[in-house]
Amino acid sequence: MPVKKSTGGEPVPVRKNLKVRGFLASGISCGIKRASKSDLALILSESQADVAGVFTTNSVKAAPVLLDMKRVMSGAARGVVVNSGNANACTGKKGAADALAMASGVEKELGLKKGDILVSSTGVIGVPLPIDKIRSGIPLLIKGLSPDGFNKAAAAIMTTDAFPKTHQAVARIHGKTVTVAGVAKGAGMICPDMATMLAYLLTDANIRHKTLGKALREAVGETFNSIIVDNDTSTNDTVLAFANGRAGCAEIKSGTNELKAFTVLLKKVCGELSRMIVRDGEGATKVVEVEVSGAATKRDAEKAARTIAESLLVKTALFGGDPNWGRIIAALGRAGIRMREDKVVIAINGVVVAKNGLDAGREKKAAMAMKAPDVVLKVELNCGRHSKSVWTSDLTYDYVMINSAYRT
Amino acid sequence: MPVKKSTGGEPVPVRKNLKVRGFLASGISCGIKRASKSDLALILSESQADVAGVFTTNSVKAAPVLLDMKRVMSGAARGVVVNSGNANACTGKKGAADALAMASGVEKELGLKKGDILVSSTGVIGVPLPIDKIRSGIPLLIKGLSPDGFNKAAAAIMTTDAFPKTHQAVARIHGKTVTVAGVAKGAGMICPDMATMLAYLLTDANIRHKTLGKALREAVGETFNSIIVDNDTSTNDTVLAFANGRAGCAEIKSGTNELKAFTVLLKKVCGELSRMIVRDGEGATKVVEVEVSGAATKRDAEKAARTIAESLLVKTALFGGDPNWGRIIAALGRAGIRMREDKVVIAINGVVVAKNGLDAGREKKAAMAMKAPDVVLKVELNCGRHSKSVWTSDLTYDYVMINSAYRT
Repeated sequence: MPVKKSTGGEPVPVRKNLKVRGFLASGISCGIKRASKSDLALILSESQADVAGVFTTNSVKAAPVLLDMKRVMSGAARGVVVNSGNANACTGKKGAADALAMASGVEKELGLKKGDILVSSTGVIGVPLPIDKIRSGIPLLIKGLSPDGFNKAAAAIMTTDAFPKTHQAVARIHGKTVTVAGVAKGAGMICPDMATMLAYLLTDANIRHKTLGKALREAVGETFNSIIVDNDTSTNDTVLAFANGRAGCAEIKSGTNELKAFTVLLKKVCGELSRMIVRDGEGATKVVEVEVSGAATKRDAEKAARTIAESLLVKTALFGGDPNWGRIIAALGRAGIRMREDKVVIAINGVVVAKNGLDAGREKKAAMAMKAPDVVLKVELNCGRHSKSVWTSDLTYDYVMINSAYRT
Repeated sequence: MPVKKSTGGEPVPVRKNLKVRGFLASGISCGIKRASKSDLALILSESQADVAGVFTTNSVKAAPVLLDMKRVMSGAARGVVVNSGNANACTGKKGAADALAMASGVEKELGLKKGDILVSSTGVIGVPLPIDKIRSGIPLLIKGLSPDGFNKAAAAIMTTDAFPKTHQAVARIHGKTVTVAGVAKGAGMICPDMATMLAYLLTDANIRHKTLGKALREAVGETFNSIIVDNDTSTNDTVLAFANGRAGCAEIKSGTNELKAFTVLLKKVCGELSRMIVRDGEGATKVVEVEVSGAATKRDAEKAARTIAESLLVKTALFGGDPNWGRIIAALGRAGIRMREDKVVIAINGVVVAKNGLDAGREKKAAMAMKAPDVVLKVELNCGRHSKSVWTSDLTYDYVMINSAYRT
């Protein structure tokens, strides 16, 4: 396992532990990973919670994803148990039985009913889950449950992550302070088709699972799905939201301003976690926002932004600090969008490098501006009113090192 | 400019010069590249030739591509002048005038009529073409024309290529020996969205331009287009075929066995040039054939093969010699094809690593087999009768080095 080098961007702040009414968390080492690294996490609501989920669209789905997809249909749950180091994907009938055993192990130990606990796994694909290690770890895991346990849980779900990812925010809704707290893992940003991204949103809001699901899908679309291309979702990608109503506010109903406020809150937390995942992109030294505007359609804006953000040549140029806008316009040209080359304006961190599709003669200034750890690539198509931002990272030697040495 | 390290695979053979009746070639340095590297090539038929072309589908097309697309419509030409070091793409009206000036410079010097010479450019995008250097070089370029000049021409069209690419083959058609000779450049295999791939096919066959075009499109589909994904074509990708009829055979007509034989010959040469391009993939250490069989449809076979061949995680695992079949099945799952995970069989260089979607327990043996410079990834979907092979290379540190340092 390679050592993850420090990533670029601003120094990662030491995060305070999350705190959200009625939720507990825990994280321990049960022996899946070597060197006693923590690898098993539990997040639990003290009372029944409404639950909603967004899952990978990959047709090859890991066993825990298939289990969760069934379980969230009831709309209610108590929590989720997560292991890292093994994805429990492509593991057949044994994999399905293991996912179930992982959930029921926690349910039995806590005296909960069947279906109360969801499951996630992340790590290597195609290797049977060491279920006995997990089973043996469950008592210690439960013993560790605490309102202050979120940092431990966040650490226990990491794989190639360089740092744990948590964030929380509050808003006044129906006269009460509502909290949304989030825990996520993910670092394989450049091509996340491994068991890559997990996120858990915990809120004390009073909201039913259908409304929660609607807010969650909207938030995920503009955050996690704007850093991860749909086609590239892994076998295990999972976002779950739990709402236990402990804030004591009135119910947040569909079609209300309160739902709008709650959705904004959810987006804020999801957005922050998304940017942390980009900052922690495998081997990344830069966080890059690709902002496309003036597209003829919403779909065009999205295709343009994603094609640029996925281009290996753009990503390597970003690593090299080379304001090579030719690679950006070449990516636009193959994005399958309505565009006119002679209308395109491209700016890198505010320095216009191409105007009307031609070189603007400001390469040196742009190269200076690109030295920053945060880079904004602004592309104006001048073809319409639609825009889209996506976040990505650069492609570096370390990406190759991390991914060529992942297992062997 | 980084030094290109030696590529993997078999040692590159010293190729004999191409020889094809009635064709001359030349290659010189005119000063576009630094250090007197050769950067200007000319290929000429001694008499009028039928011509056909296949061009990039990128909506941003370089000036020479736009010129050639018009010129091939006449079906007749005498040759092509090519520069490396500058793509003449995203260069506006000046670029269009420069491409025209490059052609007419050669036409005038040779006393040809307007439209007889086609043009290609390859290199950096968005920088005006140094047309004066090219103009000054034309007399020397023409002086160098020789039936033995193809190695020089092949060298003059290289950019990040580690070695020049030529191949020829012959067949008996209508009782005569017909030759097809090919010259190509290309190394940006992993994501060829820069000004990437050029190829010129020269034949003494007697064939009209429409029939020639049909044969060319078929050959390109199974060769150059099976290493380069359509969506990823660059602003400059060009394949041109010239036929001057000097073999003295009867005309090769549409719908005949002779056309079949000619197409096979063309495929042979295009196939060999394609594999050279993969072997020379930027930073590549391995040539990888991804062979998908048992797909429900032809489209499914193609999507599956390409999704695997494009996956960064598969490519880095290949570099690391890691038989990580989980990454292959995860790529299949997001390819948008009809498949059943529990029917998939995956073999790496003959070693079955996954059967019925489960680990076959032969990882060590597969890791040994992967040490070879040529790797065949065989994927059997067991869903139908369709198959497709594509060629790709691994993703290495050198790829990042070459592409992050390309200009600066």
